Amino acid sequence: MKTDIEIARAATLKPIEEIGARLGVPAEALFRYGPHKAKIDLAWAGEQAKKPQGKLILVTAINPTPAGEGKTTTTVGLGDALNRIGKKAAICLREPSLGPSFGMKGGAAGGGHAQVVPMEDINLHFTGDFHAIGAAHNLLAALIDNHVYWGNGLGIDGRRVTWRRALDMNDRALRQIIVGLGGVANGHPREDGFDITVASEVMAIFCLARNLDDLRERLARIVVAATRDRAPITAGDLKADGAMTVLLKDALAPNLVQTIENNPAFVHGGPFANIAHGCNSVLATTTALGLADYVVTEAGFGADLGAEKFFDIKCRKAGLSPSAAVIVATVRALKMHGGVAKADLARENVGAVEAGFANLARHIENVRRFGVPPVVAINRFGTDTPAERDAIIAGCRKMGVEAFDCSHWANGGAGAEDLARAVVTLAESGEAKFRPLYPDALPLMDKIRTIATTLYGAAGIAPEAKVVARAQELEKSGHGNLPVCMAKTQYSFSTDPDAKGAPSGHTIPVRELRLLAGAGFVVALCGDIMTMPGLPRVPASESIGLDADGNVVGLF
Amino acid sequence: MKTDIEIARAATLKPIEEIGARLGVPAEALFRYGPHKAKIDLAWAGEQAKKPQGKLILVTAINPTPAGEGKTTTTVGLGDALNRIGKKAAICLREPSLGPSFGMKGGAAGGGHAQVVPMEDINLHFTGDFHAIGAAHNLLAALIDNHVYWGNGLGIDGRRVTWRRALDMNDRALRQIIVGLGGVANGHPREDGFDITVASEVMAIFCLARNLDDLRERLARIVVAATRDRAPITAGDLKADGAMTVLLKDALAPNLVQTIENNPAFVHGGPFANIAHGCNSVLATTTALGLADYVVTEAGFGADLGAEKFFDIKCRKAGLSPSAAVIVATVRALKMHGGVAKADLARENVGAVEAGFANLARHIENVRRFGVPPVVAINRFGTDTPAERDAIIAGCRKMGVEAFDCSHWANGGAGAEDLARAVVTLAESGEAKFRPLYPDALPLMDKIRTIATTLYGAAGIAPEAKVVARAQELEKSGHGNLPVCMAKTQYSFSTDPDAKGAPSGHTIPVRELRLLAGAGFVVALCGDIMTMPGLPRVPASESIGLDADGNVVGLF
Repeated sequence: MKTDIEIARAATLKPIEEIGARLGVPAEALFRYGPHKAKIDLAWAGEQAKKPQGKLILVTAINPTPAGEGKTTTTVGLGDALNRIGKKAAICLREPSLGPSFGMKGGAAGGGHAQVVPMEDINLHFTGDFHAIGAAHNLLAALIDNHVYWGNGLGIDGRRVTWRRALDMNDRALRQIIVGLGGVANGHPREDGFDITVASEVMAIFCLARNLDDLRERLARIVVAATRDRAPITAGDLKADGAMTVLLKDALAPNLVQTIENNPAFVHGGPFANIAHGCNSVLATTTALGLADYVVTEAGFGADLGAEKFFDIKCRKAGLSPSAAVIVATVRALKMHGGVAKADLARENVGAVEAGFANLARHIENVRRFGVPPVVAINRFGTDTPAERDAIIAGCRKMGVEAFDCSHWANGGAGAEDLARAVVTLAESGEAKFRPLYPDALPLMDKIRTIATTLYGAAGIAPEAKVVARAQELEKSGHGNLPVCMAKTQYSFSTDPDAKGAPSGHTIPVRELRLLAGAGFVVALCGDIMTMPGLPRVPASESIGLDADGNVVGLF
Repeated sequence: MKTDIEIARAATLKPIEEIGARLGVPAEALFRYGPHKAKIDLAWAGEQAKKPQGKLILVTAINPTPAGEGKTTTTVGLGDALNRIGKKAAICLREPSLGPSFGMKGGAAGGGHAQVVPMEDINLHFTGDFHAIGAAHNLLAALIDNHVYWGNGLGIDGRRVTWRRALDMNDRALRQIIVGLGGVANGHPREDGFDITVASEVMAIFCLARNLDDLRERLARIVVAATRDRAPITAGDLKADGAMTVLLKDALAPNLVQTIENNPAFVHGGPFANIAHGCNSVLATTTALGLADYVVTEAGFGADLGAEKFFDIKCRKAGLSPSAAVIVATVRALKMHGGVAKADLARENVGAVEAGFANLARHIENVRRFGVPPVVAINRFGTDTPAERDAIIAGCRKMGVEAFDCSHWANGGAGAEDLARAVVTLAESGEAKFRPLYPDALPLMDKIRTIATTLYGAAGIAPEAKVVARAQELEKSGHGNLPVCMAKTQYSFSTDPDAKGAPSGHTIPVRELRLLAGAGFVVALCGDIMTMPGLPRVPASESIGLDADGNVVGLF
């Protein structure tokens, strides 16, 4: 069997101008990075948001398991299938993070015959967006300590600096550090740490900004520290927003690449799906919507986190109105939700699929609560049996939802044509009546409670006392109208990653509220969220290299 | 008067294919980054090194002073002038570092009418090379702590980890830090710190590598730590070299841009000129030499550091043989070497110029010791008087060296035509008989002594006892044949930055020898060398931003 990288390399790529031309992007609006990658001129891209917009299709999934579900692969496959059945379609994906590539094996540009290319480039430095985001982040960090060093006119309390530093690397040694050691010339020692770049608020802002002005205003609002009297200090107070915008001005232009079937793919931005919203950039999505009739995009993790944030944060704030949602499931993953161990996945077990279906069923119900009609994609694996697939299809039918066996991994767009036709039917039906789950005006704690009880099946929430006080403080300071961004485990509807299926009646603890004033949401931390991953015992980097022909090996 | 950025913006740039075509670079060998920047295919570039090579001209300078000397500007002006008088000429420059741009004002892409463009891009992320170098550096750092975390099979002594981390930012708080705090999950606490990316050995290696294989072999040789018994641990031991090479594979291809007079400019690599060799990449230089009849390149700081390393490290190792050297001086800077304070520079003072000439005179003598004939460029400032300039010209004439009043800053290439004609005459004369200052086989301490007594005018060196022992240790371990890389202040021939002019009879203290086994030299530390700069009280970042038309303001 061919590996992903072998399949990607066997693809015949078209010049990126040709891909752009199919969407009506003139060559002058393309800033090329070699023959197969381009950025779309930012001003030109901005104009597309004002045009009549195409239909927006969200690809989301059941709660992830170690068995894999294939959300990106399905997004690519569906985009290719829509093009195959004659629709003008584009996909929008997140950019992969560099750091994790050197840890566990596996890229993030799809898989099999449903990939975006050139995949090595996309998985490595691509067009440098993440490096630019890291530089903007770290400039702000340097300006904080520099301000304190030169007399601290703003009265920053070193113990209350909340802005950490950022690096696109899996490096656990940097999670918790002390900086400023070595005496007077190096400043004031204080506790600090590094987050991986995708966890930076700059990344979250980057993906929600509508243009350079909006970007700068959001950057200026970032709260980086507090005074001894707890008055907030912002990036604007440090006059950092202009220089940060300059560092980000090129990166903000959306990236255009292609699938291995030569269909247009926007790959731009990639915030964490726990402490941030987990969706590609608003600018890429609105540009694509102005150019294509169908735009397929994905959201991070399962629908409890990814779809909820896509709807309640991205769509709410960007004024987007999705026409349909695809929920990706696999026989293997549902078996795990039904209690089967990973080692036993190859054996047929219809009962386990039926038990695990509860997870999918709740995601179906949840998506409907947003007024968006769902369809289910069963991402085919070689070990699936017809009886197992039929169990899913039958379960969905009972709920009035269509489910399709999809083989895009093996067959490309041809393997997802039924799904594509169903998506078109749903999108054209006018059935979608998108609405966010809660109104802006709902108090913050009520927003969290609504998400927990309505979507997670929880009996209620258990906020720590300081959290309730913090919510009141945020409401007093005028931040009560912001949406909340739930940070919890992606593996369960509860906060226990081992509670598979569809747990009910549990309680969602809320440990902390964190204001991301620039991004425009309040993060509700409901468990330990790792913002700087580590590397495994045998990192993938050990087998990464170039072969005799200069091809990358070991990375994917 | 127009600012640098206004002049740069008024320039009419030609498509980069046209610039490449003038040198015979086919469009297929150009990997474009937008319309005006490109990388030259690495394999194709490698072939150029095998062709008959053009004449290599080094631009170096007197010891820098706060008055400025304009080495990059002269390199650009001379390149433009050579093209104006009908020669096929290209220039090779270092890439600017991002971090310092947000501290003091001023880009590093030339000035006035002698600039390389697009200058904002070159001064910001450019083609991402420095980000790639930083990522490769930090991957290696992460792998060290990760190895220790997972059981430390190689027996790394945490106190003997010499590989720090890197960031392209001026951030004094990161100079000295403790990493690995927070308990078992975050590893073992140890002292660490960040250097600015240009100070990384990866940068030094990048600029000396001849191809990807050579790059990987050098990376593998980097010594990152030692065991308790002081046995060296290398990047190769950590199996980091393959992944680091993958991170650097695109960056290693030379960058092509243009001057504002539309002449070809290679801008690639940029190592520190104190703890590293301070020259652009060997690959850019050899590519340019295979394509052009004249290649003008610069070396960092004054000739005592920059030219010496260019000759003794870069030319020795890359087999280059320069045909002539241009030593840049200014009336203002020589007045400072003659004892005038910066505030008094505008007043005519021929006596001070004559006194300060001693600095220039010694650099002239030094360059000749390498068998390379020099010519002097007087980079004109508005406050210069004819009598002051004549003093320099007369002083040079006594030494048998031509000196030219050059106005390329104000007039572009037209202002440096006399200089260009003199350079051509020198280069064609066959006078150059390049030889390094010392043979490979000379013991390390003798190499240092030779540089100090021959070039610096020192009476001798004063190595600490451990330095002598370390030199013997390095010779025993087979590193005695490496050239030395002097790390001392750039402001003086001595180690006292205030000793202007041409001090004699002083002693050069040698505090430490540091093996850069991958780069292939031994650094001799002769004073405090800052490897992570800080930001000033009012950082330039405060006034950097975008204007209403989206143009960068405040950066230059």
